[in-house]
Amino acid sequence: MKLRQVGEDALLASLLGKLPVPRKVVAGAGDDCAVVESPDRKNLLVLKTDCVVEKIHFAPATDPVLVGWKAMMRPLSDFAATSAVPQFALITLILPAARLTSWVKKLYRGLQRAASHFNVSIVGGETSATRGAAAISVSVTGFVEKNRWISRTGGKNGDDLFVTGRLGGSLREKHLRFMPRINESRWLTRNFRVHAMMDLSDGLGADLPRLAKASNLGFKINSEKLPLAGGATIGEAISDGEDYELLFAISPRDRARLERSWRRRFPKLTLTRIGELNRKLKIGNRKLPGGYLHFH
Amino acid sequence: MKLRQVGEDALLASLLGKLPVPRKVVAGAGDDCAVVESPDRKNLLVLKTDCVVEKIHFAPATDPVLVGWKAMMRPLSDFAATSAVPQFALITLILPAARLTSWVKKLYRGLQRAASHFNVSIVGGETSATRGAAAISVSVTGFVEKNRWISRTGGKNGDDLFVTGRLGGSLREKHLRFMPRINESRWLTRNFRVHAMMDLSDGLGADLPRLAKASNLGFKINSEKLPLAGGATIGEAISDGEDYELLFAISPRDRARLERSWRRRFPKLTLTRIGELNRKLKIGNRKLPGGYLHFH
Repeated sequence: MKLRQVGEDALLASLLGKLPVPRKVVAGAGDDCAVVESPDRKNLLVLKTDCVVEKIHFAPATDPVLVGWKAMMRPLSDFAATSAVPQFALITLILPAARLTSWVKKLYRGLQRAASHFNVSIVGGETSATRGAAAISVSVTGFVEKNRWISRTGGKNGDDLFVTGRLGGSLREKHLRFMPRINESRWLTRNFRVHAMMDLSDGLGADLPRLAKASNLGFKINSEKLPLAGGATIGEAISDGEDYELLFAISPRDRARLERSWRRRFPKLTLTRIGELNRKLKIGNRKLPGGYLHFH
Repeated sequence: MKLRQVGEDALLASLLGKLPVPRKVVAGAGDDCAVVESPDRKNLLVLKTDCVVEKIHFAPATDPVLVGWKAMMRPLSDFAATSAVPQFALITLILPAARLTSWVKKLYRGLQRAASHFNVSIVGGETSATRGAAAISVSVTGFVEKNRWISRTGGKNGDDLFVTGRLGGSLREKHLRFMPRINESRWLTRNFRVHAMMDLSDGLGADLPRLAKASNLGFKINSEKLPLAGGATIGEAISDGEDYELLFAISPRDRARLERSWRRRFPKLTLTRIGELNRKLKIGNRKLPGGYLHFH
């Protein structure tokens, strides 16, 4: 069978699922970041790798500064999902030998600009030639306090579901210029007990069922209330992907205080209650079809 | 200018050299691994990423189990160079959609077999499609005790230069089946004061000048004494690359004890004194031509 038939994610999940998980690993494959025990008693070590590939994640004509920005910000968005602080990045460049050095310099400018934004140090890199498409892989290491680490698994029956920002239409421009919600995520875990969180990279319609399933719950969404990006339809907000916004579950008892203090702290970034986690609509183990048919 | 004219390594060095180096970074781009301060007072955090690309580092017909082995063992060889202990690995797979899932499963078997050999846990991964060649990027995190970390920079005038194993002809087979010298490296720093060390990946003729330059010294090699792999010539031992053996500098006062206890501890792996670091033959800042013309 070929990869395109089985799906890379499904194959990777089956491969990673078979690996032995030592006790030191707190969260492994399947969550946004890998989280492992460190010698430091207060903190956990957080690891994430991600890549962007030409003709898949960016077009050959895309400004390389924006390609670098996207390549760095994608794994940083997973740090936001985990409420972790990124610190160090390693870059792997896989490039055709005919690529212009000016292109590579601009790419690095974008990588560095994105890293600096969150005080991340680029501490190493490796370059390889390829006879194929350009690819940039970024690995990030950082930490999260043991009492502030958030995964997808802690959602509770009746939790409010919130999303930051606006959804849909990202491929028109936002996917090259988005800002990972690290500051927002760190603020959330400093001030609230967030039960479960993830970043929206594949679209709400694919990602929300993952969070619900990881928390062993179902969900109810009011699709009329979804915060739409300018020009986006409800369908696009659900299916487009690459929003890089936060989706999180929190007790409805915190709702009033959260909405009030969010507006004060982040007046320019909208926060929307889109629905709730719900035991009655439990999804269980049946296979989730993609798309927004789950949403009612 | 195009990458093939300037050389990827030179470009990367110029790009990474320009980045701000915060105080937390003990060794960054240019050494075998990145080494950074961790909250743990006794240990340093060690980070390395590396990749293998189809048609560059392996042939399309290569057994994917061996491709996985090589992809994992290459960054682990850099841990050996640093005398560090690898702990966690992240895998990025960039694969054509038409690749057979059986190929990917075998690749993972090789990755896992190599990781298990050194108690490394594969804690996460990311997969992307590509319209180009397959590539596998592996990022490894681990630690080294502050008093056992070795870089390329500590070589002293008059130091003996040793290499482990035999050099040359690796592309015939060894490059897919080599064993990183982590156990040997850890034994060395537990029992001796090694001044400078690296792993030989680009060939002695390219790598030794790097170690000498990093230590601000020249070197003298007796090319007749180079330990040759079966069937390899002196020229091949100097130029072939992908040996993944250790090259290290140590005081001649330790020579007798080192050679004696090495033979007892690693009876199957030869250790050879190939020459010395030397102030008189200082290379200084002049550009090093490649190859073995430096060797006399």
